[in-house]
Amino acid sequence: MTITSRTNPLIKEMRALRERKVRREAGLHFIESDKLVSEAISSGTELSTLFVKEGTPVPTGAPEDRIVFVNESVMEALCVSDTPQSVCASVRTPEQGSLMQASGLVVLLERLQDPGNVGTVIRSADAFGASLIVYSPDTADPFSPKAIRASMGSVYHVPLLCMPVPEAVTGLRKTGFSCFCGHLKGTETMPEHGQNTAFIVGNEGNGVSEEVASLCTKYRLPMPGRAESLNAAAFASVMLYILSEKH
Amino acid sequence: MTITSRTNPLIKEMRALRERKVRREAGLHFIESDKLVSEAISSGTELSTLFVKEGTPVPTGAPEDRIVFVNESVMEALCVSDTPQSVCASVRTPEQGSLMQASGLVVLLERLQDPGNVGTVIRSADAFGASLIVYSPDTADPFSPKAIRASMGSVYHVPLLCMPVPEAVTGLRKTGFSCFCGHLKGTETMPEHGQNTAFIVGNEGNGVSEEVASLCTKYRLPMPGRAESLNAAAFASVMLYILSEKH
Repeated sequence: MTITSRTNPLIKEMRALRERKVRREAGLHFIESDKLVSEAISSGTELSTLFVKEGTPVPTGAPEDRIVFVNESVMEALCVSDTPQSVCASVRTPEQGSLMQASGLVVLLERLQDPGNVGTVIRSADAFGASLIVYSPDTADPFSPKAIRASMGSVYHVPLLCMPVPEAVTGLRKTGFSCFCGHLKGTETMPEHGQNTAFIVGNEGNGVSEEVASLCTKYRLPMPGRAESLNAAAFASVMLYILSEKH
Repeated sequence: MTITSRTNPLIKEMRALRERKVRREAGLHFIESDKLVSEAISSGTELSTLFVKEGTPVPTGAPEDRIVFVNESVMEALCVSDTPQSVCASVRTPEQGSLMQASGLVVLLERLQDPGNVGTVIRSADAFGASLIVYSPDTADPFSPKAIRASMGSVYHVPLLCMPVPEAVTGLRKTGFSCFCGHLKGTETMPEHGQNTAFIVGNEGNGVSEEVASLCTKYRLPMPGRAESLNAAAFASVMLYILSEKH
């Protein structure tokens, strides 16, 4: 069977997943592109419905009972991306992580607003081997289409936990974590830190809150040039590199 | 005088600057927001026309003979940004830089496609004190609205030179530069390098070309996690940090 109508109830249901509230209530999110669908499948994440454009091959390892064929017009209605896609899927949102999983490197996002930055930080955190990513409830949703695309599927590799950042930092400190944030009043020499380190990425315009900064070691990345600051995701990536280094 | 018509010839001329070809021929580009206008003014960059929404204060240091007042509707027509702006301006594009200005840290962009990435790399290059940024003719235009916004005005701080990257790398090597690029087949130990270093940022999907890679020392950033790679601008920022460090 092939769905050929954009007004089919299932298609409408899928398009509703563009809203954060609907995603949260359904426990589902929506992904577009071969790359993301393959990442979801290979990470063992549950596909709820896999949409395949008629005439295109079914992705390797796809669960057969979840496949729905659609025509080109319906595929276009499903996807927000400008580039035409041949597959897309609604996916069970991975279960929340827990502070118990924190070991080694942990990243916390406090009110990060740009979905592209959220996805990019998740991708970098994954690359540098973070064990857990915490994000504040007012951070842009990591499971929005833009954030997932920027994460390149890393949302399926690292546990994500939505909770207030001050609470998480307090919990991490109790279990021996050194917590760092970037701050204009910070030291320019990275202090000694042990095996377990957490780094807080703050809001693009305002940085980390004073409440969180007061719980952290403040570090100021030495920048000899004229720009006052880095893009939030670029800064986070440099910090993750520094903290993941064994030196 | 206040322009109140969206069909005013000057407004049409400004909107035409959204096209790269028009920007190049006119030697002008267009910026939106207080922040960028202030950066342009404080960098001594020539404003061609400064548009101010009626009833809003004129930015400090603005050239009086270049100010044109517009009403809200015209301001909306001028700007591509979703957030309402109170100032915007057409700006004389800075003169091309030259390889003669290269000293210390240099960044080269080869076919970088996303304007946000281009701007973010320029901002990081500025922060880490790069003396020159070279970009290939097929790189996204650093003077497009999206790229300039992401650069946060750093396009006015560092000389930019559009030229083929292989040619630039050859020239830099002749004057004693160590040239680096990220590469899957590279060494994971950063080789010794002198005072003068250049780093090439490649295309988001395909990295640097084989031609350029063959002219560079290939380096592979150690990444202990599962993500295969970083976002191009995040990777460039980490590399710029490493190369700008005096260790």
